[in-house]
Amino acid sequence: MKATVNHGPRDVRVETFADPTIIEPTDAVVRVVNAAICGSDLWFYRGISPWPAGWRTGHEYTGVVEAVGAEVKGVKPGDFVIAPFSFSDGSCEFCDEGLFTSCAHLGFWGGEKNDGGQGEYVRVPFADAVLVVVPGELAAQADKRAALLALTDVMGTGFHGALGAEAGPGKIVAVIGDGAVGLCAVQSAKLLGAERIIAIGHHAGRLEIARAFGATDVVDSAAPDAAASIVEMTKGGAHAVVEAVGNQDTMDFATTVVRSGGKVCFVGVPATIKTLNFNRLFMSNVSVRGGIAPVRAYIPRLLEALGEGRIDPSPVFDLRLPLAESPAGYAAMDERRAIKVILDASTA
Amino acid sequence: MKATVNHGPRDVRVETFADPTIIEPTDAVVRVVNAAICGSDLWFYRGISPWPAGWRTGHEYTGVVEAVGAEVKGVKPGDFVIAPFSFSDGSCEFCDEGLFTSCAHLGFWGGEKNDGGQGEYVRVPFADAVLVVVPGELAAQADKRAALLALTDVMGTGFHGALGAEAGPGKIVAVIGDGAVGLCAVQSAKLLGAERIIAIGHHAGRLEIARAFGATDVVDSAAPDAAASIVEMTKGGAHAVVEAVGNQDTMDFATTVVRSGGKVCFVGVPATIKTLNFNRLFMSNVSVRGGIAPVRAYIPRLLEALGEGRIDPSPVFDLRLPLAESPAGYAAMDERRAIKVILDASTA
Repeated sequence: MKATVNHGPRDVRVETFADPTIIEPTDAVVRVVNAAICGSDLWFYRGISPWPAGWRTGHEYTGVVEAVGAEVKGVKPGDFVIAPFSFSDGSCEFCDEGLFTSCAHLGFWGGEKNDGGQGEYVRVPFADAVLVVVPGELAAQADKRAALLALTDVMGTGFHGALGAEAGPGKIVAVIGDGAVGLCAVQSAKLLGAERIIAIGHHAGRLEIARAFGATDVVDSAAPDAAASIVEMTKGGAHAVVEAVGNQDTMDFATTVVRSGGKVCFVGVPATIKTLNFNRLFMSNVSVRGGIAPVRAYIPRLLEALGEGRIDPSPVFDLRLPLAESPAGYAAMDERRAIKVILDASTA
Repeated sequence: MKATVNHGPRDVRVETFADPTIIEPTDAVVRVVNAAICGSDLWFYRGISPWPAGWRTGHEYTGVVEAVGAEVKGVKPGDFVIAPFSFSDGSCEFCDEGLFTSCAHLGFWGGEKNDGGQGEYVRVPFADAVLVVVPGELAAQADKRAALLALTDVMGTGFHGALGAEAGPGKIVAVIGDGAVGLCAVQSAKLLGAERIIAIGHHAGRLEIARAFGATDVVDSAAPDAAASIVEMTKGGAHAVVEAVGNQDTMDFATTVVRSGGKVCFVGVPATIKTLNFNRLFMSNVSVRGGIAPVRAYIPRLLEALGEGRIDPSPVFDLRLPLAESPAGYAAMDERRAIKVILDASTA
């Protein structure tokens, strides 16, 4: 099969690998239909986080089940499935709580030993616990494919941010960051019934998408008084703040615009966050929480909302390429010519 | 009247001041029965935080209402009352939510203009919103006075920590710090029905009190493997962690011993906290929240529990002195000869 592999900073290639097969009786093999390139893939692409040459890439994919092991009961060949960006056993204490990303057997796609999502096939461990079957009528709609792909990561991560910040009816929500996750957090806040949703970013086109996703206000983060203006317009700050970037300045922004007693949820990898305004957290009883989204827990709920037409995160994808051109997709995201890339690996 | 006043580092004195009178129609004047010295008073006593010479001291007191303004309806002369460590208007958005410490008119006892609790009389603004009347049968029991005094701050603060960390049935709770607030957090975790309560400190006598307050395990924080032993004994950490010290090392301890998906609530003033283990918070979906306790919100509930014999925080007081000797009380706490001092100002 063809799959995308890392060769070093700004050097990914599509090469040939052995097709995966069933190894454990709980495995499935999935033929990838769509894969995505994630903002977090840029960490290794830019040489910032280690990802050795030879490791395969991609953790967001949808596809069709090709084969299953003897113990797999929940999915069968032919099913169109969504995989969350990590896999977990589905049977430990944390999986029972829905905190799949703290699973005792947590693993990630790609790397040294696992198949990556940016390839033609993936061997899926714990298939029953990991894969979510898409109802046939939804899977049959070609124009829903991009939205389904968003459920593997960015939509679930945005939803986790909105949920963690306790967005909901009567609440003012601020979302910091206009990348794919921030935009999905805006749509999630709307799904959760938030009263007012303020999107903060600095790309006019992305903030337009934020408006379409349900933002009632947009604020240019580059304006010198951006945070103060939000505190002013909300008469004291937002109840719920989603920090969807992961930098020190955006986290400082978050703890400035949060209302007393409010919640900040950060869902961007906290790459450069070194400190918090502890005096503000203390005096205002503000809560700060991470982090990595247990996307698997949210896929069924989001799939239902998608089927009912209440969400559609597909506009976060603004560049479509065949799998063979995934290197061009990385370059487009690296150069900020695309918010997010969808790759076509095969047809369902 | 006599009242305690600051003159500089390690120099508090009891001097004569004008008796307070009703100024606003919403005021009351309270004759102090008991006052306490707080661990946080040591910040100015040791010259660490600014508290100018001439400012009066004390924010924990109980007493008897002497006089009320024309608009006061909820308390009357002769009532035995508990005052929380701060005052608030009782009518703003945050008071409505129970977050009294974020009140638009938040104020603290003592300082330049207000009467301090460590004196004979206090003028109380917003008396209806601030003071809580103690039922006559409870107020009449002299042996309950120390416990009532604890409700002004340390018991409410410990309760806030336990509540903020989401202590409750089925939960493993770790309380870091064996000062008065930590001990009260232990008793609060028990009141909230926690399954297992681990007290962490390094004074054998205080850890004995922790056991009497409901700790199922005590851990010496000075042991080199203290945090690892807690992760081990709990098979992954505590669900709820109360950080009741406010230092960097105790906060690091907290984010080490908290279970994935768990909650850390810090209720000690975060005097030396500079950073957090953000990668841990992110990868484990840990929540960290402050802070200053809206004690007023908890006094009715804690008063009821006290009346029913379900709590008794009085053992946190281990030195009793007349008001005139409050300087000796400060010295005893500064030199760690006492956990907490109770001052007798008058008889009820």
